[in-house]
Amino acid sequence: MNYTIYTLFPQLLAPWTEEALLGRAVAAGLISIEVRDLREHANNKHNRVDETPYGGGAGMVIRVDVAARAIEEVQGQTPPPDEIILLTPAGEPLTQKVVEELATKQHLCLLSGRYEGFDARVESLVTREISIGDFVLMGGEIAALTLIEATARLVSGVLGDAESHQQDSFTTGLLDYPEYTRPAEFEGDGVPDVLLSGHHANVAAWRREQALKRTSKRRPDLLKDTDLSAEDKAFLKWLETSDKPSNT
Amino acid sequence: MNYTIYTLFPQLLAPWTEEALLGRAVAAGLISIEVRDLREHANNKHNRVDETPYGGGAGMVIRVDVAARAIEEVQGQTPPPDEIILLTPAGEPLTQKVVEELATKQHLCLLSGRYEGFDARVESLVTREISIGDFVLMGGEIAALTLIEATARLVSGVLGDAESHQQDSFTTGLLDYPEYTRPAEFEGDGVPDVLLSGHHANVAAWRREQALKRTSKRRPDLLKDTDLSAEDKAFLKWLETSDKPSNT
Repeated sequence: MNYTIYTLFPQLLAPWTEEALLGRAVAAGLISIEVRDLREHANNKHNRVDETPYGGGAGMVIRVDVAARAIEEVQGQTPPPDEIILLTPAGEPLTQKVVEELATKQHLCLLSGRYEGFDARVESLVTREISIGDFVLMGGEIAALTLIEATARLVSGVLGDAESHQQDSFTTGLLDYPEYTRPAEFEGDGVPDVLLSGHHANVAAWRREQALKRTSKRRPDLLKDTDLSAEDKAFLKWLETSDKPSNT
Repeated sequence: MNYTIYTLFPQLLAPWTEEALLGRAVAAGLISIEVRDLREHANNKHNRVDETPYGGGAGMVIRVDVAARAIEEVQGQTPPPDEIILLTPAGEPLTQKVVEELATKQHLCLLSGRYEGFDARVESLVTREISIGDFVLMGGEIAALTLIEATARLVSGVLGDAESHQQDSFTTGLLDYPEYTRPAEFEGDGVPDVLLSGHHANVAAWRREQALKRTSKRRPDLLKDTDLSAEDKAFLKWLETSDKPSNT
């Protein structure tokens, strides 16, 4: 997977291409991340990319011609981008399903705005507009990183163990079950006995129940889109009628 | 506002405290961002913070005692944190309403995990668990940055113009209206006449209508939580029955 990001602050993204899991994936040649300075496409002697909005109001707006030149540049690359994505709070909300779809692509181009965002005419130059959530950031850089981390971890070989994203939150449709590690007791707080039992089938059943319990308690909205077995449904029914105090 | 972030990759966050709008707010003393290495609390000669999960399975889990020592450290600061926030996909979904509430605090402590996340017993040591969305990242650093950018821009003085977050997406309950700037014509694509009219009341009315139109087309789910005037409702009703082609 190749990523090309356009931003006015390339220095914010630099360490992400070099450090931690993303940096390791770049170093191993599993992905590439090219961070481009949008200002290189200003085409004027002051490197000016933004102007005041027509109609007045606070803030500055990034010019459509600057974005158009950046897009023209990335379209000349091999392979050209499968998607040119504008990061904006007005976009399609990002979900794990969208992440899974984008992770199958070869090349994603990400446009990160600043200030009041891009001139609205940029919308006709991109293939997609995506929002990471119903809140407002200082710019699109965090949203671009979100898309990169979420999709790159699904690229084959990026996670150390091929198994390790199969049980993720949202991949199963549920929140993840709670994990425990050493010490077995911390300030009087222990680890559920089943996890120390060595009985794999019981561990798996307990984890599924914990994922169901957590999801029904914290995010019942997710259950309607989850494939539930007869056992799952019976457990959820039992939970509803149970008076047992919850420990998650 | 003071932010203290615990992470295993402090270098990912370094430029964010120095560059762009967030860096300027730090330099101006409007906010402080302290990035702490969770590994300093490993308390063993190999600086080991993670272990394999009890019950088996892929990935590593961050020890509860490591997190506890970090939390003890931050609680010794002046002022102590108002909230100790664990960033996790299983947390409360972040919205602009949550952002507005957190922006009124003095000190936020943010715990960013990696791998399979923290030992579940950490949940009883924090005051809050927050998720930035229904997708899975490589770690909590992007989520911490999201919380910081979203809340810091509401801190007085951080945005250049006091007005400029009043019209944000979600603050009004609606998506933002489209913005346009020079050039007035780009490859045959012009700017709506009203924005060039200099008639402030007409511009304001057009922008409100565009915000309503955009929201009803892209995110009708947001309308139910928005304060709508009689004019707004009449416009939405007209939109529904209108055959006019949409330009947003």
